[in-house]
Amino acid sequence: MDVTLADVETAARRLDGAVLRTPFLHSQTLSQLTGAEIWLKFENLQFTGSFKERGALNRLLTLGPDARRRGVVTVSAGNHAQGVALHARKLGIPAAILMPESTPTVKIKRTESFGATVRLVGRDFDEASASVAEFVRQGLTFIHPFDDPEIIAGQGTIGLELIAQGPTLDAVLVSVGGGGMIAGIASVFAALSPETQVIGVESELYPSMARATNRFNGPFVGGATIAEGIAVARPGVLPLEHVQRLVDDILVVPEAVIEDAVALLLQIEKTLCEGAGAAGLAAVLAHPERFRGKRIGLVLSGGNIDMRVLTAMLQRHLVRSGQLVRLRVPMLDNAGSLGPAASIIGDMGGNILEVTHDRIFDGASARSANAVFTVELPDSERNGLVLKALHEAGFAAAVVAAHAAE
Amino acid sequence: MDVTLADVETAARRLDGAVLRTPFLHSQTLSQLTGAEIWLKFENLQFTGSFKERGALNRLLTLGPDARRRGVVTVSAGNHAQGVALHARKLGIPAAILMPESTPTVKIKRTESFGATVRLVGRDFDEASASVAEFVRQGLTFIHPFDDPEIIAGQGTIGLELIAQGPTLDAVLVSVGGGGMIAGIASVFAALSPETQVIGVESELYPSMARATNRFNGPFVGGATIAEGIAVARPGVLPLEHVQRLVDDILVVPEAVIEDAVALLLQIEKTLCEGAGAAGLAAVLAHPERFRGKRIGLVLSGGNIDMRVLTAMLQRHLVRSGQLVRLRVPMLDNAGSLGPAASIIGDMGGNILEVTHDRIFDGASARSANAVFTVELPDSERNGLVLKALHEAGFAAAVVAAHAAE
Repeated sequence: MDVTLADVETAARRLDGAVLRTPFLHSQTLSQLTGAEIWLKFENLQFTGSFKERGALNRLLTLGPDARRRGVVTVSAGNHAQGVALHARKLGIPAAILMPESTPTVKIKRTESFGATVRLVGRDFDEASASVAEFVRQGLTFIHPFDDPEIIAGQGTIGLELIAQGPTLDAVLVSVGGGGMIAGIASVFAALSPETQVIGVESELYPSMARATNRFNGPFVGGATIAEGIAVARPGVLPLEHVQRLVDDILVVPEAVIEDAVALLLQIEKTLCEGAGAAGLAAVLAHPERFRGKRIGLVLSGGNIDMRVLTAMLQRHLVRSGQLVRLRVPMLDNAGSLGPAASIIGDMGGNILEVTHDRIFDGASARSANAVFTVELPDSERNGLVLKALHEAGFAAAVVAAHAAE
Repeated sequence: MDVTLADVETAARRLDGAVLRTPFLHSQTLSQLTGAEIWLKFENLQFTGSFKERGALNRLLTLGPDARRRGVVTVSAGNHAQGVALHARKLGIPAAILMPESTPTVKIKRTESFGATVRLVGRDFDEASASVAEFVRQGLTFIHPFDDPEIIAGQGTIGLELIAQGPTLDAVLVSVGGGGMIAGIASVFAALSPETQVIGVESELYPSMARATNRFNGPFVGGATIAEGIAVARPGVLPLEHVQRLVDDILVVPEAVIEDAVALLLQIEKTLCEGAGAAGLAAVLAHPERFRGKRIGLVLSGGNIDMRVLTAMLQRHLVRSGQLVRLRVPMLDNAGSLGPAASIIGDMGGNILEVTHDRIFDGASARSANAVFTVELPDSERNGLVLKALHEAGFAAAVVAAHAAE
């Protein structure tokens, strides 16, 4: 079941013209920022917004006429669902996409817009997955998101393009969920560019592959992650075997660094990546000494991020970078107290977004109150200057720590 | 002083290899959404994040050795400043960039990072502009952002690329500030593709060119705009002459539609545009009947948008699209009132971001209160369902209108 270079080359011939050969470009600004030579593979520009089309289409194209007629089934509310839906429709293959009943309508609609039938089954992904067997009994072929040699070969075509489009890399950094993408890419580099290290990247909340390969002995935390595209509890059996044999390392990166990487790609490259898509850059940011001076390829694997999540993430990034601060300013609870403090903040360039007063729970006496200002600053340097100006005017102001964002 | 095709072709030879030949790509999803055939020119991917490099570099390359040695001066805190700074440094030309004293440090630093000297002069742009004469007396050459034939010829190279890279267009939509870009592009299309309409787009707050060409008799409003890159009070004399002669129409679009266009380009194309860069798409969204079935080229002129502005804009987009709502729920001011209302909202998929209580100013009696919930919804359809469920449970809930976002 080993996926070989020949399998990936066969997949590349099958996919030619049906998925985008995405750009692979040098980033001068990210290179200056990180000290590494950074090259970016823009898989977020695929039509459905992620690399998942490659594996899905390759798998669909290996189905015989009878299996195509009977149709396919998969379980996903994300990028894999969209990849299967789009290419099944183009090939005229009926596709049933199972999602939990709680799936947001927007995800259902997006998948339906590519022509698939969405079936809402079960309360969560485990329950939805349990229904697959039923569809398979009815004759549908299950398209697994990663534990399948044709899926791995399809994702591996990214590796062929990295080698054809760019210079020889010291390392390629690939986000890891089930492990299909890194397994395919590693198969290619092992054959064509063995001097290039292939390194996986996982969120600290879902270090499944790092734990399975004994690269990491921290806990598996789970829960909400910015990188939901790689939030997988257990790597695929087949990907794991490839990773053990062909992958040089698996790095585990903090959520906050993934958020910063998303923000940097947006600000510098003007490109939108989901958390999983930015994990490779996060690894370079988290391990600058390891990659300094090295030529690094990063696969920006997808760009499908909810605008509400993006908004929250950019705000947290502003807090961490000191451009959004909360200041607690104790003052007398009487006429004429608020104005002078607010004026000082304004004079220093701070834009006050919100003021709340805490009298009952937090004042030093019944005559005092804490005014809590949420302030936008034009740059992080202004932060300390505002505090200094308040202190000089006699206000015992303090920054309210942003625990959630640290 | 007319800029001709030959001038633009000369500029293109000068710029070859020194500015990006940016992609010009068909967008299937935006075409489906708008009913027009949409092609996008990604000028937001230029190294400094905007098309302004083209004109700036072309102008710099026309300077003689003596003028290059003495250096150049300009007034800008935005895209023109960065274009001049970058290419002056590359050519070894000293550049003084004048900005008002109030300019945020981040803009100063970004321009300095490209190698220019930033001088903070005056309280606002008018005062900063007044200082140019002094620098010119010292021998520096003023690089005007738009009222200059070499600037116009440089921006016109976008037009040559549109014609070389894409199909014959029915119309090309170009955002208009001072008018340099549209003047250059119109010169090219008049000569090479006269069947293509060239149409300018302005924000309703800054309809300077539309008013100057008698296309619009609404007021000039000014003030804060999402499209600060085209917030110009008076078009250039030379651009105006070209526009009167060569441009087919100037459209004026509402701010809210520009915000929606920025959000759509981010969600669908995964690309970050500033407001001015998204103005062309906004015009298609605002005038769907005019462009239906037509083949349209949009110049995504720049991608430099402050992350704080982007965040506020995405939130307003969520409010307009019904995914972020505020509900006022009158209830008895006693134990056990809040829980049932909050549970109903949660059961319907609403994520409660904030609850405030209005007892003093807004309750019907001293025993009643209004709870105001700010709620995230997974899709806009859920909006009415939440309200219906609250009503069925006996709560006289109402949506709080979002005036600012309409």
